[in-house]
Amino acid sequence: MTGTLKAEIICVGTELLLGQIVNTNAAWLASQLSLAGVYSYYQTVVGDNKQRLAASIRQAAGRADLVILTGGLGPTQDDITMATAAAVAGQRLILHQPSRQAIAAYFTRMGRRQVTDNNWKQALMPEKALVLPNNNGTAPGAIIEYKSKEQSSYLILLPGPPAEMQLMYQESVLPWLKHKSGTRLKHVFVRLIGIGESTVENELLDLITNQQNPTLAPYAQTGEVMLRISQAFTSLDEPDLTSGLLAELKARLGAYIYEIGPRSMVEVLFDLLRSKGQTISYAESCTGGLASAQLTDLPGSSAVLAGSLVAYSNRIKAGILGVNQALLDSEGAVSQAVVLEMAQGCRQLFATDWAVAISGIAGPDGGSPAKPVGTVWLAVAGEGIKESVCLQLSGNRARIRQVAALNAHNLVRKQLVQ
Amino acid sequence: MTGTLKAEIICVGTELLLGQIVNTNAAWLASQLSLAGVYSYYQTVVGDNKQRLAASIRQAAGRADLVILTGGLGPTQDDITMATAAAVAGQRLILHQPSRQAIAAYFTRMGRRQVTDNNWKQALMPEKALVLPNNNGTAPGAIIEYKSKEQSSYLILLPGPPAEMQLMYQESVLPWLKHKSGTRLKHVFVRLIGIGESTVENELLDLITNQQNPTLAPYAQTGEVMLRISQAFTSLDEPDLTSGLLAELKARLGAYIYEIGPRSMVEVLFDLLRSKGQTISYAESCTGGLASAQLTDLPGSSAVLAGSLVAYSNRIKAGILGVNQALLDSEGAVSQAVVLEMAQGCRQLFATDWAVAISGIAGPDGGSPAKPVGTVWLAVAGEGIKESVCLQLSGNRARIRQVAALNAHNLVRKQLVQ
Repeated sequence: MTGTLKAEIICVGTELLLGQIVNTNAAWLASQLSLAGVYSYYQTVVGDNKQRLAASIRQAAGRADLVILTGGLGPTQDDITMATAAAVAGQRLILHQPSRQAIAAYFTRMGRRQVTDNNWKQALMPEKALVLPNNNGTAPGAIIEYKSKEQSSYLILLPGPPAEMQLMYQESVLPWLKHKSGTRLKHVFVRLIGIGESTVENELLDLITNQQNPTLAPYAQTGEVMLRISQAFTSLDEPDLTSGLLAELKARLGAYIYEIGPRSMVEVLFDLLRSKGQTISYAESCTGGLASAQLTDLPGSSAVLAGSLVAYSNRIKAGILGVNQALLDSEGAVSQAVVLEMAQGCRQLFATDWAVAISGIAGPDGGSPAKPVGTVWLAVAGEGIKESVCLQLSGNRARIRQVAALNAHNLVRKQLVQ
Repeated sequence: MTGTLKAEIICVGTELLLGQIVNTNAAWLASQLSLAGVYSYYQTVVGDNKQRLAASIRQAAGRADLVILTGGLGPTQDDITMATAAAVAGQRLILHQPSRQAIAAYFTRMGRRQVTDNNWKQALMPEKALVLPNNNGTAPGAIIEYKSKEQSSYLILLPGPPAEMQLMYQESVLPWLKHKSGTRLKHVFVRLIGIGESTVENELLDLITNQQNPTLAPYAQTGEVMLRISQAFTSLDEPDLTSGLLAELKARLGAYIYEIGPRSMVEVLFDLLRSKGQTISYAESCTGGLASAQLTDLPGSSAVLAGSLVAYSNRIKAGILGVNQALLDSEGAVSQAVVLEMAQGCRQLFATDWAVAISGIAGPDGGSPAKPVGTVWLAVAGEGIKESVCLQLSGNRARIRQVAALNAHNLVRKQLVQ
């Protein structure tokens, strides 16, 4: 089993079929498989039903080298994935002592004295399985070889809770996969802002269509563009060609690139501020706290964010940020003059190195011919610095707020990299 | 085709197979089908590949009465769902004049003068299809009857963009479905806070397990519990039994019920404030703007939210909210005394009827034996009112922030319904 592997993902759970939860596991696994150079042609969701699950496993194993299953490994009666996969592969379930000990140790760590009997069920593993430890919960995973008349494939069973599934994939499945597949892949992510996806594709059309290895592919994102450079290596002495392609990207679109790597805009901004020991505050009108919530979502953000003001009403813009009331009356809250005063007032109020102000019309109401829904003014204030920009954004209220916050972070970032 | 219908969902798109986007369409459609009393046993994701898509359609049609497809109706070469479904059903594609006119009208409304040729492709429909108008975009949908040797089923094709798909489902598919299925369903949603899911299930075990019609089912939610009462009606003269079951729920768990209906916590709070003509402000520490962002996500929220302060550092808590510095030093920022002063300072600063303060340890760092990660203090201040509560939350940083904001909204709601 070398060369290009094919995989299918099967997510098990009646709550998925009822639409009670969104299937983020499928997207996460699919993106990881793509990063690992594994193709996938199908994803399936099936309920906690032995017959239908077994049929789905057999069908997937007939089409793919790897069948990755998530969910249904827990202690309840509904959790039938391990037993069903074992039955399909013709293997008995036997007690796996190390897993039983790991479950006991987990409950001891959690301070639970009594372990109910059904929990031990999770230590019953197919007799020839490679058992994958669960370092974030109780149910171990497994890799089971499945030989049908037509072909041989592997069933890879992972738990349903995303935190357990992701850790097990990274700790156990990925190293196993790298060993199985002879190919090593290198990826470079390039993130751009201030340029549309179609313009990027036009500028890079020759590289996107003609490149075989490394390849160049655009990714859909909200309010920004991401490119992925991927090179496959089959031996250790092949030259790294990603840097040449990256240099070409920089030559063509360098002004729009804000990150070469995995970080989001707000992470880039956070790292820049932290490395310079500088602080920031936000004065948010139409985003209503979203920009601050994004920054404070990062652990350790208290090192850079002193505070923020959601200045939603004009009374607050005037009373707390000190925006000139006459200016609010004559220019309106969504204007260059007001957003600049908001930024300066915010910087004074919080005594931070930088302050960013956001004022716009997120809709669905409040637009006018002169200032339609999607009009957003942004300003940044720093020591001896004031800059502003006006955006005309499309989409619904949620998208307008999202893209406004993204560009607000970017306005400070540009100052920090000058 | 009466009685209980079976459906399968097929989502078409290579970007789903690559994990570039999360499949929210499947969850949305699945929950709608469940509400409509339609069972679904499988969901499939398949790429923009004619052969594999055709095979998926045939398989699903062999198992279900309805095959609902989303995606692949657009103007590009990759968009092959309509042509593939037509081929499977043995129908020719013909130009559907009303759809062509609708596309032309859409581009005129959007101010686009030139319509490229590939856009007209979207008006090519299977000759015997029931065409579904797209009132949020260009690509129409279709319902195609498909008769195989074994059985007869319907292929229902919807666009991929969620806003287009959802509107088309509600405007065209749901009425068609109600007509096809002889059954009418009534649902009542009941939302509870302050009680765990397992306690709810224990209290209601007899009702959950014994009820046949209406049924009672718990739903997984973050930091709260949702129950669904569902009754199926096959004729107009059957009595409505949902109110009896609801009365029983109220008798057992009334103290925890905050909504009987579809509204979220923040929507309930918004409606209460608006109906009373009262205003609110938030002083957010660990949530960092999230509570305010949730309220301002609702159109029209400027009627009730004057502003908010993200008081992330102690300097801001003391300097802008006027929290006693000695109290911050002795009790710490995450304490009853401090959160009460934050709420009162916030109410003064923004001159609102109500102010809520949130101060906690969202982690992963910052915990101590006395105040572990997940410790959150909340306080509300109103005219002559101050209340506080301490939560011990589990989960990661994102969950702790989410549940803290949810309970902050609830603290004010409880004051408003007294």
